[in-house]
Amino acid sequence: MEELERRQGFMRAAIELAQQSVAGGGGPFGAVVVRDGTIIGRGHNRVTLDNDPTAHAEIVAMRDACRTSGDFRLERCELYVNCEPCPMCLAAAYWAHLERVFYAATTTDAAASGFDDAVIYQQLCMPAPQRSIGLTPLLRDEALGTFSAWQDKQDRIDY
Amino acid sequence: MEELERRQGFMRAAIELAQQSVAGGGGPFGAVVVRDGTIIGRGHNRVTLDNDPTAHAEIVAMRDACRTSGDFRLERCELYVNCEPCPMCLAAAYWAHLERVFYAATTTDAAASGFDDAVIYQQLCMPAPQRSIGLTPLLRDEALGTFSAWQDKQDRIDY
Repeated sequence: MEELERRQGFMRAAIELAQQSVAGGGGPFGAVVVRDGTIIGRGHNRVTLDNDPTAHAEIVAMRDACRTSGDFRLERCELYVNCEPCPMCLAAAYWAHLERVFYAATTTDAAASGFDDAVIYQQLCMPAPQRSIGLTPLLRDEALGTFSAWQDKQDRIDY
Repeated sequence: MEELERRQGFMRAAIELAQQSVAGGGGPFGAVVVRDGTIIGRGHNRVTLDNDPTAHAEIVAMRDACRTSGDFRLERCELYVNCEPCPMCLAAAYWAHLERVFYAATTTDAAASGFDDAVIYQQLCMPAPQRSIGLTPLLRDEALGTFSAWQDKQDRIDY
């Protein structure tokens, strides 16, 4: 019960950020990143404020948490967001090694407000030739040397 | 033929950025955004340099192009990247309304160097309960008011 209340508190912080975002000219999304019971990152949607199509609340919150913790991994972290993440943000959660995501509204609720993530999920899960954004191979042979250089690099930082 | 040469030139610029990235301590990825035959955005991987798990070359290049053009949409733009995009970057391309993506190395080449995008594609295309990052609903009812506030906002900027 205590854990549920704690989690509800984090979700209410994310919802509050979403509400502030609408008032401040951003999209209706807010998120917080929590580690060991403490909020270490906060974000709200800044797409139109910053002219940055990647500035979804989750991405902004994860970047903030990484800055705070000085680490590009968010292991043992939970993300609380007022809406089910789009595929960009969910993929970012995988890259960040997040542990768990809590969401309030669903992608269906978001679609009813004009944010149609489902279409992008469908696009990503199609074979490339069927996608609406064309993906064309070019100069593969010339690119492989970069990967060899990476593998040969003694002081590389894997991520 | 002239068009192919022009495109190869843009791809070589992306490969060059990837090579510079390895030399400078970033991951082996580079990208450029092109509109009307001109490069308007450049990026290389900065994940470990900036402690930002979302700073893939494509995201950095798209953010740069948006900053340059003062717009959160990259309509009529092409992305050139030295490797097939991961799902985070491809989803970002959809949000940015990019027109087309050219890539050199494949996700299989990237996996051989330790960058396993395929796993994340698989995760996104699974039903949520089967994913390794748990997605748990919480307080949906409390979140819906934010979407109503968004829809009621007269001066909202849709994106």
